Amino acid sequence: MSFAHCFIHSSRLAARRSKLIARSFFILLSILLSAQLAFSQSDLKVYPTHWWTGMKNRKLQLMVHKPSGLTTSKTAVVSNSTDVRILKYYKPANNHYLFIDVEIAANAHPGSKNIRIANPALNESYTINYELKARSKENGKTRIKGITSEDLIYLIMPDRFSNGDPSNDRVAGMKDQSLNREKIFDRHGGDLKGIENHLDYLQDLGVTALWLNPVLQNDMPQRTEHGYAATDHYTIEPRLGGAPAYHSLSNALHKRGMKLIQDAVYNHVGIEHFLFRDLPDSSWFHFWSTYTNTTYKDQVLMDPYAAAIDKKKMSDGWFVPSMPDLNQHNPYVANFLIQHAIWCTEEFGLDGWRIDTYAYNDLPFMNRCNKALLDEYPQLHIFGETWVHGVPNQSYFTENVYQLPFKSNLPAVTDFQMNLYGIVPALNQRFGWTEGVNRLYLTASNDFVYKDPMKQVIFLDNHDLSRFLSVVGEDVQKLKIGLAWLLTFRGVPQLYYGTEIKMKNFADPDGLVRLDFPGGWAGDSANKFTVAGRTASEDSLFNYTRTLAQFRKQSSAIKTGKMMQYVPEDGVYVYFRYDARQTVMCIMNPGDKEIEFTTARFEQRLKGFTKAKDIITGQTATIKDKMKVPAKTQLVLELN
Amino acid sequence: MSFAHCFIHSSRLAARRSKLIARSFFILLSILLSAQLAFSQSDLKVYPTHWWTGMKNRKLQLMVHKPSGLTTSKTAVVSNSTDVRILKYYKPANNHYLFIDVEIAANAHPGSKNIRIANPALNESYTINYELKARSKENGKTRIKGITSEDLIYLIMPDRFSNGDPSNDRVAGMKDQSLNREKIFDRHGGDLKGIENHLDYLQDLGVTALWLNPVLQNDMPQRTEHGYAATDHYTIEPRLGGAPAYHSLSNALHKRGMKLIQDAVYNHVGIEHFLFRDLPDSSWFHFWSTYTNTTYKDQVLMDPYAAAIDKKKMSDGWFVPSMPDLNQHNPYVANFLIQHAIWCTEEFGLDGWRIDTYAYNDLPFMNRCNKALLDEYPQLHIFGETWVHGVPNQSYFTENVYQLPFKSNLPAVTDFQMNLYGIVPALNQRFGWTEGVNRLYLTASNDFVYKDPMKQVIFLDNHDLSRFLSVVGEDVQKLKIGLAWLLTFRGVPQLYYGTEIKMKNFADPDGLVRLDFPGGWAGDSANKFTVAGRTASEDSLFNYTRTLAQFRKQSSAIKTGKMMQYVPEDGVYVYFRYDARQTVMCIMNPGDKEIEFTTARFEQRLKGFTKAKDIITGQTATIKDKMKVPAKTQLVLELN
Repeated sequence: MSFAHCFIHSSRLAARRSKLIARSFFILLSILLSAQLAFSQSDLKVYPTHWWTGMKNRKLQLMVHKPSGLTTSKTAVVSNSTDVRILKYYKPANNHYLFIDVEIAANAHPGSKNIRIANPALNESYTINYELKARSKENGKTRIKGITSEDLIYLIMPDRFSNGDPSNDRVAGMKDQSLNREKIFDRHGGDLKGIENHLDYLQDLGVTALWLNPVLQNDMPQRTEHGYAATDHYTIEPRLGGAPAYHSLSNALHKRGMKLIQDAVYNHVGIEHFLFRDLPDSSWFHFWSTYTNTTYKDQVLMDPYAAAIDKKKMSDGWFVPSMPDLNQHNPYVANFLIQHAIWCTEEFGLDGWRIDTYAYNDLPFMNRCNKALLDEYPQLHIFGETWVHGVPNQSYFTENVYQLPFKSNLPAVTDFQMNLYGIVPALNQRFGWTEGVNRLYLTASNDFVYKDPMKQVIFLDNHDLSRFLSVVGEDVQKLKIGLAWLLTFRGVPQLYYGTEIKMKNFADPDGLVRLDFPGGWAGDSANKFTVAGRTASEDSLFNYTRTLAQFRKQSSAIKTGKMMQYVPEDGVYVYFRYDARQTVMCIMNPGDKEIEFTTARFEQRLKGFTKAKDIITGQTATIKDKMKVPAKTQLVLELN
Repeated sequence: MSFAHCFIHSSRLAARRSKLIARSFFILLSILLSAQLAFSQSDLKVYPTHWWTGMKNRKLQLMVHKPSGLTTSKTAVVSNSTDVRILKYYKPANNHYLFIDVEIAANAHPGSKNIRIANPALNESYTINYELKARSKENGKTRIKGITSEDLIYLIMPDRFSNGDPSNDRVAGMKDQSLNREKIFDRHGGDLKGIENHLDYLQDLGVTALWLNPVLQNDMPQRTEHGYAATDHYTIEPRLGGAPAYHSLSNALHKRGMKLIQDAVYNHVGIEHFLFRDLPDSSWFHFWSTYTNTTYKDQVLMDPYAAAIDKKKMSDGWFVPSMPDLNQHNPYVANFLIQHAIWCTEEFGLDGWRIDTYAYNDLPFMNRCNKALLDEYPQLHIFGETWVHGVPNQSYFTENVYQLPFKSNLPAVTDFQMNLYGIVPALNQRFGWTEGVNRLYLTASNDFVYKDPMKQVIFLDNHDLSRFLSVVGEDVQKLKIGLAWLLTFRGVPQLYYGTEIKMKNFADPDGLVRLDFPGGWAGDSANKFTVAGRTASEDSLFNYTRTLAQFRKQSSAIKTGKMMQYVPEDGVYVYFRYDARQTVMCIMNPGDKEIEFTTARFEQRLKGFTKAKDIITGQTATIKDKMKVPAKTQLVLELN
């Protein structure tokens, strides 16, 4: 599918044919010969499959792969287009591969560009008609808007949200032929079309951006539901609908002013990836004399006392046995990954990237990759997964205030600290000196270490974590506090699919946090996408979430305003979001008792206001010297 | 006592006496008049009580205090010595005070310098014969050595260690006349002479430096045992022996190559301090319309979201009702405090300062104060108390790698993080992903935020914390691990008096962590300073501590070497201290089982070595592929 725009031809030519042969003659000959000789070169592929004119970075490294054999010691490459200049080429140990560095002319025209790979010894040559496309625009401008704190991200596992096209549930020839919605780790049939079918629902909820778990082909024998074991970077997973469905979803989102975030995995691939099955050379992956897992200890990366072997195990050990660890020190690996990121961004009009297992990558490589993306797309948002423990640890991986030899250029992270040491203890711990809402308050106070806290992505849960409703003991009041916090706090909020309709369960041991969204499949007993399908309690939570999310959409104070937080007293945590136009007061009381408090100490933010509108109830009240916040409630008040 | 070197005279003179009167005549007149008129000016005092020639900073602000009245609107000041130039003077609202800015000549000679305060309206004048001393030297060099990671600090509560001079147990005229060793918060009679009497014991133990809780006069009605409520900065507490005893102790320490650290309180004074009882003006302290305590929330100081009122409460709220909060924004307050710090350093030959309640001070003031001290004494060590929660919080107060508008210049802190989130959980928590020794390992990995981790002061306990033996459930094996850690880890170790002889108890609720050192008082039933007075178990712990402390004294690897730590495995934490001359391997196993581990992964530090000497047992063994560490043990091995 992904090769649709890449026309590859090869031709058998006289070995000593001069480079001086007229170009017109050569093209004619190519056309004449291509039809009859195509069969024997049918396994030749080029990555990236195509590229674009008008990119800021006009250099490109083509990887040519021909599993039946491609190069000899005498293989040479020539370009027959002035739009594409060959800079150099490289033949790795495995003669199935050839790397060609090219430069695209500044004034290159879109179209197919002729590059010839000649094997004089074999009396053989291949011609690549490499397509350069014009970049897609919307109203003359880039489609790529980026993701900011104005957005609400909704995380979807594509296999588990909705089955829009049952014809792709199983794809012939693929290794995982499971299709069993009764088993949590088998395929369930969800797809991109299913997501596109429910954009009304999502937009109504207040969602502005989708982050999907990886959509690249995962032709693995099992556990393909999560998508983190890519087997071909340039093929969108056929069981999700392939590239056409991804294009369609992207276009549908952008038409609504919504946005798309792709999930990148730079650290590893699935063990069935063609680059592992047919290695360019032994330096593409980290090989150990015996299988060596990563230690998962991010500490070694920043620790001034770390041992070399611990650093090596962390970065070069495998994440799991089924996912070989890429050697990003290899410049060809690095180029392959970086170009693929740019290719996807341009091809599918991505607004953001979430980067999987960020700490496990080679960090200088990640800086190169981030820079390449941001050089080309300054508005793009990139946030890395940092499931680590401690603000110093997490902040090391994103743009921070540290004067250190290594400085990360990653714009943001998935803010696990604000989850593990923020909203979770705020709701689950009794109020104490460093417990309960004081823990959340303390973690927020540490924001001084980030270059820009507002770019950090906050969340209640995700596909790896227990669902928040279960985390808070199935207490819907606590879930509501969590949602109010998520939708009013600093940063970019991310909601996990189904949280709004009370989906629950724990990540361990049974993985039931990846259940299907009820109603996403024809014949489901209830359709929670509709009011009719939801119980009263589910609909209440849905409306609660929607009310806050829609309010957020219109709230400059929350979207781009500043934050002020107060030292918690009596177990109550008060913070404000504010700008010149609007002030929103948030009062979190996770305790079992109604608390009355004096408003005098909030004068810095309350002055000039006399009334407060409760965003949930819609009721407006006069601000008095004393206020009450009910037990297990977060009030969100717009001041007037 | 502290005024011993300050000769103050005053003289009543004709109001219009010309400044041109010959200096010799003036001096003659002063001498003639001083004797007969001294009585009426006997309450005039000058602070600092004296100063020195040859200081780098030659500017000085004298505070003159005369409770019976000093100034009028016409009061003028003249210097009659070319060694002291009057720069300007300032009369605060309270006419009992006068501030005189002077500059001491670069070539000033030691001796008494004549300054005259004239009150023409009252036909009155006072003459101060201000003494400039020559700076003390040892063998032509400064006495002040500083404190580094080569030292072992021993913290003593002077009232609780030993009573060397029973004659000063009660001092007539002082408010607290309690003297009852049965009550933990009454006075017990310990003093500086008692400490000096036991320097052999301390030096034998391996101690190189003493940190004493504050030694300034605390003429408060009760709770004077801790010393943190000063009532006169320039008087050493008479019940500790006053300035003579402090001079004697300092000299005795320096003669042994040992060092002295003073405990500074810049944030507040005792409510009986003369500066509070007779305010220079209302801006010397932070006054609130109703009593306002500090919130103790350091977070507000670094929090990008802090409210103004929360910052004000933290910094300007009172620490406790009996200790008024000094307004360090007032430049006269600032000068008074800074000059006192320099005065003490020079007067008593201090090697270091521990700063109480560091976070509660005005931080820019603290930077000024630290700079003034370090400009004059670059070798001096200064470490601030930071009883806060989190490495970001703690590191904000010391020299760090943060690029922020505020940058602390404090060289080090009392490393509470390495205690609360380091050695305590290492010994008290079961081994888990972020628990047990992993917690200690994680906290150490965060050292990248400090400019110099080796300057940080680590400890098991202190006068405010529960004693470590109680913290670890009275498990002596765990205490031994703690001690081995303390004496081999990075930083400057600080031992609390009596830990080495198994003193125990909890800080709350009864304060029994401040019990007397047994044997420090004549007639004590047992004298733990001697082998004979110690039980076998106490003597064993004493010898264990001494063995490690004495080894440390000779160990370049521990004193100044680097550190390397390994990811803990099977509950065992391994770290190395090493330099070109020596390598020390430390293996901590707080668990209940002996653990066998392979040595291969430590190759980076083990290579070249074949034997390991156990510092505790003195036995040497060959390094093999597998090693064992017994349950609840820290091995300290010197490699050969």
